[in-house]
Amino acid sequence: MIPLILIVALIAGIISIGMALYFRKLVLKEDPGNERMVEVSGYIEKGAKTYIKIQYKVLAIFVAVLFVVILLFLPSELTGGALPLAVGDLNWEQAMAYAIGALGSMVAGYLGMYVGVKANTRAAQGCTVGTKKGFDIAFFGGSVMGLAVVGVALIGVSIIIWVFQTPIVVLGFSFGASSIALFMKCGGGIYTKTADVGADLVGKAEYNLPEDDPRNPATIADNVGDNVGDIAGMGSDLFDSYVASIVAAMLLAAALVIGDAQGYFVVYPLVICGVGLIASLIGIFLIKWKGSEDPGKSLNLGTYLATVIFAGLGAIFSLLMTIGLDPIYISKVWSNYWAVLLGLASGLVIGFTSDYFTRDDKKPTRNMAYAAQEGDAVVILSGFAYGLISVVPPAIGIVIAMFLAYILDGVFGVAMAAVGMLAIVGTIVSNDAYGPIVDNARSIAEQGELGDEIIRTADRLDSAGNTAKAITKGFAIGAANLTVLALLFSYTEEAGITLAGINLLDIRVLIGAFIGVVVPALFSALLVLAVQRNAAKMVDEIRRQFEENPKILKGEEAADFSRTIDIATKGSLKELILPSIISIVIPIVVGILFGVAGLGAFLAGAILSGFVFAVFMSNAGGAWDNAKKWIEDGNLGGKGTDTHKAAITGDTVGDPFKDTAGPSINTLLVVMSLTASIFMGLLLLFNGGAGLFVL
Amino acid sequence: MIPLILIVALIAGIISIGMALYFRKLVLKEDPGNERMVEVSGYIEKGAKTYIKIQYKVLAIFVAVLFVVILLFLPSELTGGALPLAVGDLNWEQAMAYAIGALGSMVAGYLGMYVGVKANTRAAQGCTVGTKKGFDIAFFGGSVMGLAVVGVALIGVSIIIWVFQTPIVVLGFSFGASSIALFMKCGGGIYTKTADVGADLVGKAEYNLPEDDPRNPATIADNVGDNVGDIAGMGSDLFDSYVASIVAAMLLAAALVIGDAQGYFVVYPLVICGVGLIASLIGIFLIKWKGSEDPGKSLNLGTYLATVIFAGLGAIFSLLMTIGLDPIYISKVWSNYWAVLLGLASGLVIGFTSDYFTRDDKKPTRNMAYAAQEGDAVVILSGFAYGLISVVPPAIGIVIAMFLAYILDGVFGVAMAAVGMLAIVGTIVSNDAYGPIVDNARSIAEQGELGDEIIRTADRLDSAGNTAKAITKGFAIGAANLTVLALLFSYTEEAGITLAGINLLDIRVLIGAFIGVVVPALFSALLVLAVQRNAAKMVDEIRRQFEENPKILKGEEAADFSRTIDIATKGSLKELILPSIISIVIPIVVGILFGVAGLGAFLAGAILSGFVFAVFMSNAGGAWDNAKKWIEDGNLGGKGTDTHKAAITGDTVGDPFKDTAGPSINTLLVVMSLTASIFMGLLLLFNGGAGLFVL
Repeated sequence: MIPLILIVALIAGIISIGMALYFRKLVLKEDPGNERMVEVSGYIEKGAKTYIKIQYKVLAIFVAVLFVVILLFLPSELTGGALPLAVGDLNWEQAMAYAIGALGSMVAGYLGMYVGVKANTRAAQGCTVGTKKGFDIAFFGGSVMGLAVVGVALIGVSIIIWVFQTPIVVLGFSFGASSIALFMKCGGGIYTKTADVGADLVGKAEYNLPEDDPRNPATIADNVGDNVGDIAGMGSDLFDSYVASIVAAMLLAAALVIGDAQGYFVVYPLVICGVGLIASLIGIFLIKWKGSEDPGKSLNLGTYLATVIFAGLGAIFSLLMTIGLDPIYISKVWSNYWAVLLGLASGLVIGFTSDYFTRDDKKPTRNMAYAAQEGDAVVILSGFAYGLISVVPPAIGIVIAMFLAYILDGVFGVAMAAVGMLAIVGTIVSNDAYGPIVDNARSIAEQGELGDEIIRTADRLDSAGNTAKAITKGFAIGAANLTVLALLFSYTEEAGITLAGINLLDIRVLIGAFIGVVVPALFSALLVLAVQRNAAKMVDEIRRQFEENPKILKGEEAADFSRTIDIATKGSLKELILPSIISIVIPIVVGILFGVAGLGAFLAGAILSGFVFAVFMSNAGGAWDNAKKWIEDGNLGGKGTDTHKAAITGDTVGDPFKDTAGPSINTLLVVMSLTASIFMGLLLLFNGGAGLFVL
Repeated sequence: MIPLILIVALIAGIISIGMALYFRKLVLKEDPGNERMVEVSGYIEKGAKTYIKIQYKVLAIFVAVLFVVILLFLPSELTGGALPLAVGDLNWEQAMAYAIGALGSMVAGYLGMYVGVKANTRAAQGCTVGTKKGFDIAFFGGSVMGLAVVGVALIGVSIIIWVFQTPIVVLGFSFGASSIALFMKCGGGIYTKTADVGADLVGKAEYNLPEDDPRNPATIADNVGDNVGDIAGMGSDLFDSYVASIVAAMLLAAALVIGDAQGYFVVYPLVICGVGLIASLIGIFLIKWKGSEDPGKSLNLGTYLATVIFAGLGAIFSLLMTIGLDPIYISKVWSNYWAVLLGLASGLVIGFTSDYFTRDDKKPTRNMAYAAQEGDAVVILSGFAYGLISVVPPAIGIVIAMFLAYILDGVFGVAMAAVGMLAIVGTIVSNDAYGPIVDNARSIAEQGELGDEIIRTADRLDSAGNTAKAITKGFAIGAANLTVLALLFSYTEEAGITLAGINLLDIRVLIGAFIGVVVPALFSALLVLAVQRNAAKMVDEIRRQFEENPKILKGEEAADFSRTIDIATKGSLKELILPSIISIVIPIVVGILFGVAGLGAFLAGAILSGFVFAVFMSNAGGAWDNAKKWIEDGNLGGKGTDTHKAAITGDTVGDPFKDTAGPSINTLLVVMSLTASIFMGLLLLFNGGAGLFVL
């Protein structure tokens, strides 16, 4: 049933892991710099590993529990094959796939983060040689994460679909990846902002210490946070969207295409992703070979190259796909090839609008900086308003992409557009992971006293990272959104409710939508509150250290970094319990009470309102950050003015928006969508899926 | 067809107007206080009248244009009776009703505001006699607004339904009321916060002037804002929800009940509202007769009394309704009586949860005050998070009310629950209008130098007003939400799409919902930006006056109030153009492109996300305000500390949230829902209502 062309994805995945290991070696053999730098880097590595160790312990228990739940309750035991897509008794298979998916996500995250904490000091030292050297080390360090994520995903999905011949088992794999991503993203996001906000509130605002000052007890925790939040968290987030987009398309192919051609369309998303990975790899190599003194240009060049190569290779492999295919399906392949390109193009458009709304040379951020002149409240109001307005262009982008893809090939076309948007995710994650590495490198250059010129070089690298991050973040949100829309369609196919539909005039459906719209708001609020609460503890600890030991401020004694790391670690793990429960329990409860149609509307409501909150929070946060940086560059009076202070307030408010709550919503949506699909068997127990409240 | 019992509503309306005129006389004969007070009050009156004059001129043009549009395009000319509810050729009738509704809203707003600006100085002077005297004047001043609103609405609706015998014409009346409300609410909201934020930013933050200091050039504009935003704006907002809830229920009765009983159910909402008005009147009289030294208790007593009396009278009149009714419909009357009580009870619950989330003796506001100790950014984060969390309880309240009402009598039950929630709106508006009157009274007492003791008395009245306002605001949002849900159902009945349904799996429906969810976010952003932009102009003007004429600050010369009033007036009118266009044009465009089902989903999406934004913004703003006041009462160090400064930042951010954007969303939703119904004839031209994009 599954055609051999699938091997493209498997081979691409294996090459990718090979390249990740090769880049790891390249990075590790670089000079880690002076003694102080190695010491600082060692602290960061130790902090990150401590966090990951505790986090993975908790996750192991969580995975074990869900493994048993899946084994006992889902889906086939309960329904006895009532699911349209269920092939026999798949509980064991799905539970195993779940565990493998979870493990894969953990391994990819660990590998990426391990190289990240090694690359930072080496990139800092590289800056002493030149911009290009520093850039290369950071970029290849970041690529390890990007390639590991994509490689693990493609190998996992290819093998599972080959062995079990049904995407239902891949659903388990995807759920495993997502449930880990939820913890990694929320936990990492809370961690990084607890440290960052805490460090800023006391260090910058009360003691006028510069950013990354080694006397600040939270500096190392802040650096650790960049690694656990922005590298491991973002990596597992995109791992999760990536796998989910593939499984959504696979499920739809299995549901909608009949006969021999089914297998071709089931593996088509995998082939496209394999091709995307090859294109990303070529792009990365071209950057290494060609290079540029301008790091921002190099990053963008990689993205453009990957896009163009992908479009070409995609056409070739789509042509290969048509060999042996029933001729009546050939036009379907080409329709979906166009849907894929459409998805990719709209992903780029969304990325670049995020960029527009957060660049300091464009109107929104510039106006926010001017607003800072009127005081703290005005810069907040301005950022709030522009953040909300920035939702409109990507919403239009998604709507157009969805509509055209639907015209091309219905819901399968929409799913393939999501796959297309995520096809070059190897490049996206690499660019993204580059950011925290150079951020850390800058901090280590400061703490290792490499001098002003080297710090300025590191600053240039860092600034390119920030721009890349704005684009990739927009991209990630757009891709996740289109993916969950595809998951919504595959969910409804699975539930067999396409005939009856999800009718908003059915009161239970309307109630489902109502609850769905509220959940992302509640989820964002809980994460912001978590950061605020933990940052307050961090502030108390920093103040305590400065007050009890005045030598710390004088730079005569080292601050106690382990205490601040401990606060960030424990706080973030504790605070993510409630949000995680929400994301799994609420969909199940809604499904039981209001039926599968009500749950479908719940998902739709959550997807749409989640999109608004995710884009708003990410862009407002990014713009506040850049408005502050622009003022720090000497504009509107520069550092130390009241305008600067107001801008810092904006930045501090924006921190948990853009790095905790905003990007976590993606994962929330994917987890909720997959929960709905996975627990379908349970829901069918209640009046055959009509829910407890049949009117 | 229309039974005689309708006369209850007409008589209640006439009594209400009579009482409003009587209370007006009572207020006007009170002592307006010393010369300085009369002078200040005169400035406020002049400012308010100037604003209203310009506003009404603009509105006259707007109404004239829409009058012609309705006449030429809607609905019957185009469809030739294709509408299920259209009775013959109603264009002229609907256009006339539209103009009358607009005029009614303008008259009610003007009358309320006129008495408001007269009552403020008299209430201040009343405080020199005692708390009860001051309370009485302010309360009766506020009642004029409450009674005028309800009276005009009931008389208008009763006469129109009697003359034309079809609720389709009442729809025109409702649309007239709503389009005025949109301008009054948005314009007033921008005006009041332009002045308030501007006055605070310069006066409080830069020159350390106290609130309402007469030297501040924006003080009078701030007072004017209370009248045009909080009295006239809030009045027209509730006028609009009130009429809309009645018309939604009437339309559903006309669509769902067949035969002789139809007329009974068409007038049942009017009868319930008439009974509610009588209950409100009795409540107001009992407060006058009994009174209390504690103004907060008096206000709540009035609400409780009105509720209890309403429940009793409602039962009696429901019994009267059943006389002459076909016996098979008798149980339907009682089901809807219970739906009405359910709506009222849930309205109170929603009001009291708003109260919980904004009271300074409860956890959320208290925690926000503590967060202010960590700085400006933390108090913002805390308020943002609690504001979002506060969405959950009222959402559950609405969901339960909607579900139970639906079980009682389907969509008509839901519509009657909305009517029930708004039945005692006379009391609600009276309590609400009391707030700005005592707020102004306090300011006039300060400017008229009545001494500390009198100001403290006025402060006590003001504080009761703030609590009442939190409750009524929650109430208004809940009522508007249930009303627009009822309008959604009546829209779908009218469109005849109940059979096909609004299926979220239809891509055009999903796109409609997507756009709908985004619109309230965009709308909020535009209003917040409008306030921010105008407040900046106000800040410049205040600074200019202080710098060019140092005698102003010394209190030797009066500031130039006319300039600040001019900025607020012109700015608010200019800034509401874009939001108004959005609210009317976007629904029509969505309906043309994606059909009536897509437009239905658009409305549903907007209603749900609008609910989230409205509750979030109102409650966050209220809580920030009260956290600041609690600190000003001497807690956490009191006035002048950094904690206090941070709390002021929170309050300033909250100002446009709670008084501009948050409450305006109600009106947006009602206008969009009515636009959809009114322009149905136009939409049916495009592939019979399937929209341009038929797939």
